[in-house]
Amino acid sequence: MEKYDVCILGGGPAGLTAGIYSSRYDMKTILVTREIGGMANLAEKVENYPGFDGSGKDLMKKFYQQAKDYGAKFLNEDIIDIKKVKNEFIVTTNTIKIGVKAVIIALGLQRRKLNIPGEDKFLGKGVSYCATCDANFFKGKDVAVIGGSDSACKASLLLSGIARKVYLTYRGSELRCENIIKKKLIGKKNVEFMYDTTPFEIKGKQAVSELIVIRDGKEIPRQEKISVQGVFIEIGGLPASDIAKMLRVKLDKEEHIIVDKDMSTNIPGVFAAGDIVKSKLKQIIVAASQGAIAAKSAYEFIKEK
Amino acid sequence: MEKYDVCILGGGPAGLTAGIYSSRYDMKTILVTREIGGMANLAEKVENYPGFDGSGKDLMKKFYQQAKDYGAKFLNEDIIDIKKVKNEFIVTTNTIKIGVKAVIIALGLQRRKLNIPGEDKFLGKGVSYCATCDANFFKGKDVAVIGGSDSACKASLLLSGIARKVYLTYRGSELRCENIIKKKLIGKKNVEFMYDTTPFEIKGKQAVSELIVIRDGKEIPRQEKISVQGVFIEIGGLPASDIAKMLRVKLDKEEHIIVDKDMSTNIPGVFAAGDIVKSKLKQIIVAASQGAIAAKSAYEFIKEK
Repeated sequence: MEKYDVCILGGGPAGLTAGIYSSRYDMKTILVTREIGGMANLAEKVENYPGFDGSGKDLMKKFYQQAKDYGAKFLNEDIIDIKKVKNEFIVTTNTIKIGVKAVIIALGLQRRKLNIPGEDKFLGKGVSYCATCDANFFKGKDVAVIGGSDSACKASLLLSGIARKVYLTYRGSELRCENIIKKKLIGKKNVEFMYDTTPFEIKGKQAVSELIVIRDGKEIPRQEKISVQGVFIEIGGLPASDIAKMLRVKLDKEEHIIVDKDMSTNIPGVFAAGDIVKSKLKQIIVAASQGAIAAKSAYEFIKEK
Repeated sequence: MEKYDVCILGGGPAGLTAGIYSSRYDMKTILVTREIGGMANLAEKVENYPGFDGSGKDLMKKFYQQAKDYGAKFLNEDIIDIKKVKNEFIVTTNTIKIGVKAVIIALGLQRRKLNIPGEDKFLGKGVSYCATCDANFFKGKDVAVIGGSDSACKASLLLSGIARKVYLTYRGSELRCENIIKKKLIGKKNVEFMYDTTPFEIKGKQAVSELIVIRDGKEIPRQEKISVQGVFIEIGGLPASDIAKMLRVKLDKEEHIIVDKDMSTNIPGVFAAGDIVKSKLKQIIVAASQGAIAAKSAYEFIKEK
């Protein structure tokens, strides 16, 4: 069994920054992830990470290169099991077992689903969870975006330049995105805002042709059909906390890992960072900061052992 | 009197990031600072800000440009007074008064002094608080560095390539810097490590010629003279909390501003970020994250008013 000081689970902004710091603290570090960059890859343009201007993918490549340069090892595998045996954590992937002294969980979010009829059936046939990835398939077509937060607004903005018409449907009565994005969006003539609107069913034959919604508002709720070829579901994500559960790490009601200021969990030697932790602001800069702090805490934990 | 939504005090990583986010939240933002970049400017090479490779000054220029591009105004003046009048904060600089709805204090640290004889007298004549700024004046000379944390070790490493001999004097018995730096430092033949060593007096005629120290260790404490032309004092800083006191913001014993998770202080509408706040890890990435969170909290505060 290979031995390391620290095993980082997840390769998004938090995991990669933990990798940079962990290696700089001269700890033998391994990072297990199926995807370098995670959700940050979905950002076509990162405008609010201080000191950087470019795509999410490019920024994540830089994070990755830095962690690698300082000596972090990367393993492109799934984690099948993780457990604590005496003073050690045993991480099992599809091919190997690794023994480590500390674990940093930075697995981020899994995309949240609507759970309405047609959602699964038409995935990849009009239904998408990633406007940045799939927008270009809808050139000149009509699409609906579901959601009202930053990601829904950004998706609508992107789609307004590609699709013929964008219906932004949101169950709330006021968008929750950054004002700079809201302003841009309101200026778009081909974006129709549908507030107090709840998705009900996605219909079609081979591919999506219709989104059925319930319109609440002030009047009596009523069903309405929207003719669209694409439905972009942008309602955020759920923390990917299955692995945390294997270690009996305490979670809140929404399954975020509960951490202290130093990113430590209730299990000594287990730390967490990034979107898997509840935080005031889901941004790359915040996740990265948490990754750095988690690495320092792991370092102090190992030193004291 | 000019009116703004938010006034940010301080132009280091935390203040500038607060400026980026505050402007993106479409708040009318003014940032008052005498120096863009703050202490981050002192880093000759920033190696652990994810996604960036270059000098601290260059990184801070990028932060600054981003904040400016999104519409933050900058004012290169001193703050003379700040007070709360009804629902508004009145910020007085040497030339104008500004009325704002929220304040973000990101004033960082003031360099900590030794308070020993000769320290003030020889400032700029051999005594320096900034190796990055002054190292090159000591080519081929002998210097002492005082301190044992990251900044002292980095200063010693830098000076080892410039000065003839570097005495790293530290009152503790083990350096507290990152291992990667410690390792490099130990490899340097012209660096002498003096542990359990307390500075006592700086002597000279026109300029520094001698550092007197007390050596504790295992034996009976004894004075020792070190012949040096330079003394670099790298013992960290104190939070610059005078302005916080004007607003009756609660401080801890070390005069750090006490904040909640959302960077709010005990005074509604006053937020704080960066080195002026007690934090697990004094790093650009952490300060920047706090600045972003403070801006979001200020936005929510103003919106709810």
